[in-house]
Amino acid sequence: MCGIFGIFGHPEASNLAYLGLHALQHRGQESAGIVTSDGERLYAHRSMGLVQDAFSEDVLSKLPGAVGIGHVRYSTAGGSGLRNAQPLAVDYARGSLAVAHNGNLTNADELRERLEARGSIFQSSADTETVVHLIAQSAQRTIEDRVVDALSQVEGAYSMVFLTEDRIIAVRDPRGFRPLCLGTLRSRGGVHVVASEPVSFDLIDAELLRSLEPGEMLVIDKGGVRSSFPFARQEVRECVFEHVYFARPDSPLGGATVYDVRRALGRRLGDEHPVEADVVVPVPDSGVPSAMGFAERLGIPFELGLIRSHYVGRTFIEPSQSIRHFGVTLKLNPVTSVLRGKRVVVVDDSIVRGTTSRKIVKMLRDAGAREVHVRVSSPPTRWPCYYGIDTPTRRELIASSHTTDEIARYLTADSLGYISLDGMIDAVVGARGEGAEARARFCHACFSGEYPVEFRGQPAGRQLRLLGV
Amino acid sequence: MCGIFGIFGHPEASNLAYLGLHALQHRGQESAGIVTSDGERLYAHRSMGLVQDAFSEDVLSKLPGAVGIGHVRYSTAGGSGLRNAQPLAVDYARGSLAVAHNGNLTNADELRERLEARGSIFQSSADTETVVHLIAQSAQRTIEDRVVDALSQVEGAYSMVFLTEDRIIAVRDPRGFRPLCLGTLRSRGGVHVVASEPVSFDLIDAELLRSLEPGEMLVIDKGGVRSSFPFARQEVRECVFEHVYFARPDSPLGGATVYDVRRALGRRLGDEHPVEADVVVPVPDSGVPSAMGFAERLGIPFELGLIRSHYVGRTFIEPSQSIRHFGVTLKLNPVTSVLRGKRVVVVDDSIVRGTTSRKIVKMLRDAGAREVHVRVSSPPTRWPCYYGIDTPTRRELIASSHTTDEIARYLTADSLGYISLDGMIDAVVGARGEGAEARARFCHACFSGEYPVEFRGQPAGRQLRLLGV
Amino acid sequence: MCGIFGIFGHPEASNLAYLGLHALQHRGQESAGIVTSDGERLYAHRSMGLVQDAFSEDVLSKLPGAVGIGHVRYSTAGGSGLRNAQPLAVDYARGSLAVAHNGNLTNADELRERLEARGSIFQSSADTETVVHLIAQSAQRTIEDRVVDALSQVEGAYSMVFLTEDRIIAVRDPRGFRPLCLGTLRSRGGVHVVASEPVSFDLIDAELLRSLEPGEMLVIDKGGVRSSFPFARQEVRECVFEHVYFARPDSPLGGATVYDVRRALGRRLGDEHPVEADVVVPVPDSGVPSAMGFAERLGIPFELGLIRSHYVGRTFIEPSQSIRHFGVTLKLNPVTSVLRGKRVVVVDDSIVRGTTSRKIVKMLRDAGAREVHVRVSSPPTRWPCYYGIDTPTRRELIASSHTTDEIARYLTADSLGYISLDGMIDAVVGARGEGAEARARFCHACFSGEYPVEFRGQPAGRQLRLLGV
Amino acid sequence: MCGIFGIFGHPEASNLAYLGLHALQHRGQESAGIVTSDGERLYAHRSMGLVQDAFSEDVLSKLPGAVGIGHVRYSTAGGSGLRNAQPLAVDYARGSLAVAHNGNLTNADELRERLEARGSIFQSSADTETVVHLIAQSAQRTIEDRVVDALSQVEGAYSMVFLTEDRIIAVRDPRGFRPLCLGTLRSRGGVHVVASEPVSFDLIDAELLRSLEPGEMLVIDKGGVRSSFPFARQEVRECVFEHVYFARPDSPLGGATVYDVRRALGRRLGDEHPVEADVVVPVPDSGVPSAMGFAERLGIPFELGLIRSHYVGRTFIEPSQSIRHFGVTLKLNPVTSVLRGKRVVVVDDSIVRGTTSRKIVKMLRDAGAREVHVRVSSPPTRWPCYYGIDTPTRRELIASSHTTDEIARYLTADSLGYISLDGMIDAVVGARGEGAEARARFCHACFSGEYPVEFRGQPAGRQLRLLGV
Repeated sequence: MCGIFGIFGHPEASNLAYLGLHALQHRGQESAGIVTSDGERLYAHRSMGLVQDAFSEDVLSKLPGAVGIGHVRYSTAGGSGLRNAQPLAVDYARGSLAVAHNGNLTNADELRERLEARGSIFQSSADTETVVHLIAQSAQRTIEDRVVDALSQVEGAYSMVFLTEDRIIAVRDPRGFRPLCLGTLRSRGGVHVVASEPVSFDLIDAELLRSLEPGEMLVIDKGGVRSSFPFARQEVRECVFEHVYFARPDSPLGGATVYDVRRALGRRLGDEHPVEADVVVPVPDSGVPSAMGFAERLGIPFELGLIRSHYVGRTFIEPSQSIRHFGVTLKLNPVTSVLRGKRVVVVDDSIVRGTTSRKIVKMLRDAGAREVHVRVSSPPTRWPCYYGIDTPTRRELIASSHTTDEIARYLTADSLGYISLDGMIDAVVGARGEGAEARARFCHACFSGEYPVEFRGQPAGRQLRLLGV
Repeated sequence: MCGIFGIFGHPEASNLAYLGLHALQHRGQESAGIVTSDGERLYAHRSMGLVQDAFSEDVLSKLPGAVGIGHVRYSTAGGSGLRNAQPLAVDYARGSLAVAHNGNLTNADELRERLEARGSIFQSSADTETVVHLIAQSAQRTIEDRVVDALSQVEGAYSMVFLTEDRIIAVRDPRGFRPLCLGTLRSRGGVHVVASEPVSFDLIDAELLRSLEPGEMLVIDKGGVRSSFPFARQEVRECVFEHVYFARPDSPLGGATVYDVRRALGRRLGDEHPVEADVVVPVPDSGVPSAMGFAERLGIPFELGLIRSHYVGRTFIEPSQSIRHFGVTLKLNPVTSVLRGKRVVVVDDSIVRGTTSRKIVKMLRDAGAREVHVRVSSPPTRWPCYYGIDTPTRRELIASSHTTDEIARYLTADSLGYISLDGMIDAVVGARGEGAEARARFCHACFSGEYPVEFRGQPAGRQLRLLGV
Repeated sequence: MCGIFGIFGHPEASNLAYLGLHALQHRGQESAGIVTSDGERLYAHRSMGLVQDAFSEDVLSKLPGAVGIGHVRYSTAGGSGLRNAQPLAVDYARGSLAVAHNGNLTNADELRERLEARGSIFQSSADTETVVHLIAQSAQRTIEDRVVDALSQVEGAYSMVFLTEDRIIAVRDPRGFRPLCLGTLRSRGGVHVVASEPVSFDLIDAELLRSLEPGEMLVIDKGGVRSSFPFARQEVRECVFEHVYFARPDSPLGGATVYDVRRALGRRLGDEHPVEADVVVPVPDSGVPSAMGFAERLGIPFELGLIRSHYVGRTFIEPSQSIRHFGVTLKLNPVTSVLRGKRVVVVDDSIVRGTTSRKIVKMLRDAGAREVHVRVSSPPTRWPCYYGIDTPTRRELIASSHTTDEIARYLTADSLGYISLDGMIDAVVGARGEGAEARARFCHACFSGEYPVEFRGQPAGRQLRLLGV
Repeated sequence: MCGIFGIFGHPEASNLAYLGLHALQHRGQESAGIVTSDGERLYAHRSMGLVQDAFSEDVLSKLPGAVGIGHVRYSTAGGSGLRNAQPLAVDYARGSLAVAHNGNLTNADELRERLEARGSIFQSSADTETVVHLIAQSAQRTIEDRVVDALSQVEGAYSMVFLTEDRIIAVRDPRGFRPLCLGTLRSRGGVHVVASEPVSFDLIDAELLRSLEPGEMLVIDKGGVRSSFPFARQEVRECVFEHVYFARPDSPLGGATVYDVRRALGRRLGDEHPVEADVVVPVPDSGVPSAMGFAERLGIPFELGLIRSHYVGRTFIEPSQSIRHFGVTLKLNPVTSVLRGKRVVVVDDSIVRGTTSRKIVKMLRDAGAREVHVRVSSPPTRWPCYYGIDTPTRRELIASSHTTDEIARYLTADSLGYISLDGMIDAVVGARGEGAEARARFCHACFSGEYPVEFRGQPAGRQLRLLGV
């Protein structure tokens, strides 16, 4: 998972990109980067770590110009360091080019092999680099046509922002796997911004104009914003997981905030898996809205029975190495007074490996819970994502090889209930005020195994050939 | 504000102190330090910044021994750097001595002048250093007697942990301003720990034995734990602000968790300042429990209408300098779908200068709130704290010079209601299951101006004489 | 200027590469890098700064394998940062490939344009990257043939070491501009090393086997060392400046140590520009041997009248920015007792801009010298180097636009004498015990303007298109 | 060993202190510190490492004021870190006070025990801190009288610079063990500087006015410079080792430069230990002048047969840990062409443990030397220094337990000759143009065991009681 950002037309482009990336920090903490243009040259800075650590005032002052793009990268297995950090910036025949990518290409290996056979050299193991090669080798004349030419050859998920000396090109793939939206600054006319999520706009006082449509390409330059749909039409497949887990709750994705969607998921979960209990507690922070919806639907008191430390990142994401083995204990603490002697429902947004959930159940029991019922606001996660979510391999996904009963026993839970796939989609569509026809717009491959685009590659193998900076 | 920690009897004392301090990180982010003893010598490491940045595995490995104390320090105005970081460690006639202090001495300047007149030199501007001088100059023979001798001369708030080559001495001042509690490791016999809050124990799998009584002194050495009450008896004055703002919600202070206390405050606030509205939203994270209590009492739906970014510290506490001017916007985002067209009650735990609250009201209105009613789960903060809470000067406290109506107008709120002093104390006492006689046990000087101990000093003047490392 | 190193067959390849680079530190202080192979993958680490700062034990431990190459890079005008640091490492069709390069290609821009026209993308502005593209695009089958194919298309100066998963390929260009030598470890059989200068061998207890011949290519793998001469024969043109200025005095280049050569230059300088004086003082450290030779020839006492600080780098090379304006004063101090009232000859190895020499003359006079005669052990530097020495532009070279008399006046010297071009070459050839026929083997373009290979490019322009990491 | 610096009256005092310390870097590389005063407050910065690493422009800008002192500290056994770095700065009854000290007090332990018995606490293990306590406890009124009162109680070696809000006080102890000199800026009137060596003045364009006399105290404030001799007269005992080893060769100590003294030592060494040989080579850099004198006296050619790497510190001083085991090889390389087949005399300035010399003899033989004769320009080092030179313990000094013959065998040298004590003193006195009466002015305890001041303490014991920051 990653976050991308672009801005055109503001003299402090790098500062605004910095703030925009900051608001997207939840989408990736492994590395951060910004590339700007002053009209003649590109200026790049990429660094491992959080946005606030990667950039200082001094560094930002060395990224001049009124146009810029940025990227935050999610921690991936085996993390390959600065070499794979984005934006990727290169020189080619027509000048310089930088690109920030959110998503994953399913035919990158195939393309790479073809490119390498022609003599291309690669500086990273990122699939994004194939796109840059395709652009450089395109027979088309304008950069817009070259980008279209290149992207017509790739498959999979891509929300991308390109930067040249004088323009930004923003693209959302025809299936619309990953979000991408357009905004404009309130405080200054003629400044356009694009970002993975509209939360990126609040900090810089920009307002959301709209989401890019699947398959849409925006060219932003001195002439303004031009939209086109240059790619072959595909069935839309927005990632449902964005709503359940990834996006910030205040993100209005597709007409409803993620917060609304999560509350709706909680209510539906309550319909599907009711339980008699004394208290509903969420696994904070992402489980809070669905726990509220669940509690509301079943009329059980909602309480914050687990407190999350502000000084450690989220479960899916790296704590500092030296304390990793303390796992969940570092991040969550039980509020004994809420739990002691109670029948507790704990609501989480997903179960991946099951290890964290098991620790939480134990923590609740140690704090005095009489019963612990686990409710999950997404269906069992059984399949890896090939479109940009950094899931573990199938073998590690507990639901890929165990029944719900088996998982409940592993968790030592008194009961376990996942929302159904239909239930989840109903809830999302309902919260967005859409009709039944919208039910087909989602990719839910990680739950259903129904992959909209076939994956053709050996992901791990390629990545390990060249390591380091 | 600060957090202190001590451990006796575990071969990896520095690692456990590290984890213990980590759980106290909310009590101070300016500096962190640990001093250990291997029975013959003391080993110290202090550093500016967060616990996780101040210590690495390598640094911890250079702090050997089975006994150790630690400290996290709150950011204070004008920040004085490493020179004032704790634990303070010195050599004196009887060996080495380190001390970690939470609180503030009200006669430190007076004592310091007297000590300096005798020829004492000071390495820091911290009031804590006067205690060490008094210990060194005491005519008493044992370290315990010297500590008693020294502390009998100081006034004000002090929860302290001392470390010598072979023991820990933990003291809570006779008025009990600041908390201090005792625990023991579950996984290993004979290991005792002390900490500002019991949340410090969870991470290291220790269990809370009890809070120290006001005026109690514990000596922990190979012979075990010995308790005494060597100081002149005083009326107890626990800091009520710990419950309202400072302690972690899962901290069981005085028989109830802070979470319970906050919910009770919310309910009482609802009784005192009811309002007709569509939704109650908290200022996260500390305002959540009281908002829940408020919503419950008045039967108004509770929603998370403001989302807090996980990657920035709390309002009271430093964001990185370069983005400070973006203020609250960096940390909070509105959930538009919850707010649009609604009559909103926003519940916060305190109003200090008013600037943040004003921004929040504006943010809610910008997000479409039709009405904004502010409710505060503490009384108006009108007086500075002389006992260890880092409040601004009187002039900066908006409530010290404005009426509630004036403040409401400044905030542009449709209405404003603070809990009453009596209401707050009732709620705290009630949540703790105590009787009316317990109402007198609290210090509420920051709200009432009733200072249990007179402050005698010129705080700012002294601190600025010698700067740097 | 740069230094390169390669090692094959030692389990601690990265540690030995580290030490080898350390001994080559005088050849470049801007950046340092090492790439190793464990037989399957390449592991890279590059960093700005000195070798000892770029690598720690921890970093070296992450560079496993028995094969490795390394590079130190000289500070170039406008410094382009990590992006241009070497070894350059890429993935291509046949696996991974890394290369370290000392020298400069004269047709790199032309090649780059041709490559870009075909669609190649560039990650750096270094000429070295063109070679890697040519290798990747070669129609040849083996890596050796591909390297030959690529290098047959480039012109200019290149001593290069390539690393693949299982071998090292070392090449010295047919004109032999830059040195490259082969050695073997004394302490362990079957370990071969290559390096820019044999001083690199001493630290790792390797012995010099021989210099590579101009046009020679060595393939070092499990089968041992194989030599070939696959390139079209060219007239040899070794860089004479290496002997005068660049190489370490203990480097045995071409049969004599650089120390011997410099002493011989000093003697010849004495023959050509005798002077009556009381004392000969060198500009330390590189001017010491020629001053000794000069003093010996003319029978004038040799004294160290200028002392060089050990804690600052050499004139040509970056002091830390903040103290740059103090220039030569930071590095040199006069020994007043040696100079006061004396007629002083000061011997330096070259005059580039003249500003440093002018300061030295002033410093000597301020210290009491009655007369100051400047003698230079190289001819006037009038032309830029296109083969890898980082000289300033012509305009900045004082000798390109001023006569010796004018320069003497600028320096405020009582007299000024440069060694003649013939004299310099005679001295070098003589010290190496070679015959007159060897006089033609040198490149002296920086003194004579006789360029053995034409330069075709716009060096500055290209480099500035894409900046940063 | 340490270097101290002080400046009064320049608006950029911290910048000039930085440059002054830079020129004293050879006197200490472990830590560096500067304290300035703006007339009201003191501003301090101390850091481990070299001057250029300890200070940045940013750090210097936070040290305002026109008065400042600085310190560089030598690496001592067991290095105790920042806690012992200087200048030491404290608050006491009369304001703030900082002090930088070069030397060693012989009764510090005694004084410390007395002070601790009175109740003093110590923040460091440095003897310097006792002086500050004595000043704070003095019954005298003015700071000058307090300093005199304090220093009248200490014994041993001390060149010290004190800083208060408005003045500098510089003191050289009555025996004059360590140097200290006074200068004035050329470029700006009324600015006075003091420094351990006058080389510190060159960089800042100051001129040497004079050395302080033993027992002299200077008070420098707005009224100018006032000199007095407030201490009981003692026989002068300047450290002879400063001239032989420690000071920079361009330092004019006592009327001759150190360079002259070293040349004279070389000549005398030639008289005392002549040898038939082909070449004289110094151990660079400190052995160069004495090797030149030796060669000149015996008419043997002088050559630089050993080249010192510019990128590693001197033998006595820390290379980075990871390469320490490579010892001398890292720093010295033989020039084979100078040595092969030759009878070589190698001249060094001292032999401490013998291990380095042994490696040098081996290196020379490996490079082809037929004979190796070792000559040393100081007498056998047999006794530890109690006055500020960081010598190893007696047990480690090879000459304390071995005859010259035994040492020669250990070194595997063909012959070994040390200058005699008388010879050394004659040479020093002669070079300074002094009469025979000056022979008594030197401390040569490290060679002779004749300690001018008895040492009373247990140096190691005290230092290890409290470690870390």
